[in-house]
Amino acid sequence: MATLHTVPARKGLALRVRKGQHYKVINTHGYQIVDHWAFNAEDYRECMSMEHCHVAIDKLMPVVGDTMVTNKRRPIITLMADTSPGIHDTMVAACDIYRYQQLGAVGHHDNCTDNLANALKAIGVSIQPHETPAPFNIFQNTQYHPGKGIAYLPTVSKKGDYVTLRAEMDAIVAFSCCPQDMIPVNSGKPTSAEVELE
Amino acid sequence: MATLHTVPARKGLALRVRKGQHYKVINTHGYQIVDHWAFNAEDYRECMSMEHCHVAIDKLMPVVGDTMVTNKRRPIITLMADTSPGIHDTMVAACDIYRYQQLGAVGHHDNCTDNLANALKAIGVSIQPHETPAPFNIFQNTQYHPGKGIAYLPTVSKKGDYVTLRAEMDAIVAFSCCPQDMIPVNSGKPTSAEVELE
Repeated sequence: MATLHTVPARKGLALRVRKGQHYKVINTHGYQIVDHWAFNAEDYRECMSMEHCHVAIDKLMPVVGDTMVTNKRRPIITLMADTSPGIHDTMVAACDIYRYQQLGAVGHHDNCTDNLANALKAIGVSIQPHETPAPFNIFQNTQYHPGKGIAYLPTVSKKGDYVTLRAEMDAIVAFSCCPQDMIPVNSGKPTSAEVELE
Repeated sequence: MATLHTVPARKGLALRVRKGQHYKVINTHGYQIVDHWAFNAEDYRECMSMEHCHVAIDKLMPVVGDTMVTNKRRPIITLMADTSPGIHDTMVAACDIYRYQQLGAVGHHDNCTDNLANALKAIGVSIQPHETPAPFNIFQNTQYHPGKGIAYLPTVSKKGDYVTLRAEMDAIVAFSCCPQDMIPVNSGKPTSAEVELE
């Protein structure tokens, strides 16, 4: 029996999954980036690590069949299906209050770094800001052109596109609907997304 | 008055630098990768972060003039000079015991992750393994070919090549002469390197 969980617009969500369990990250409204993290359920200090994943998957952008690994180089999640054009990002940090301040925000601005901490806190796990792992930025369309800078483009994923992931260990999986509205990565209008747990 | 500090072959070294101070990382024997980290001297939890640097420098490989930033997006070091061909890496994790085990090592193998922790410990700073930031892999020649995998090639830096860096805050700077001898990134023979402190 599948259960559907909403990641609210601009906010985060953390869920516990069992080894072997599948979950779908659904771009419900389209054009929304979902920052994703995964942690060993028994020890949050073991977490999915993009810099270790690059070596493990032998590329910078995972494709169906690739298994992401932790900072102990152990399998934690596998990309089982992807109905989007397959454009995701593994190279840039989650947004944080400092990023928005640099872009000119004054006062509070929702951000994926705080969303992760709050989502984990809601299920009883406490991490410090410096322990935030680099995220797997699902649906994020960031293009790297040597000599020409980085282009932060609108996603190419459409309404209803999804990726299916399988947990390779008992894990805490966390998601943030990126609240970036100061550059056009979410097409200017951050929305909610859904996670369907098998 | 400059002082010369040796980073022993296969081992690490950590030094304290003041804001504005320059230091040279010298490829003394050539063909050696030097993993590099930098931490706020007042709070090691603020550290140079590759995933934040990518956004700040607007590229994946820093060039002369680029300022690397921390996980609070504040300047921490600037690349002032580079006599090497400018090939460095910011995308893969420091090697660790898990990497060597996967490559077939049995028992102990020196690794950059432990070298960082030991180098910091020697100057009174304690970090846990999961707090190891992704390193700035100076002189590392890792090539990313979409659809063709990652190539871990010998460095293209030669004997005596150096990069000069300037600290943008009072910092702890750490180095590890990468002990990778199971793939040819250090041309098969890890050596020492030198750090010249202004």
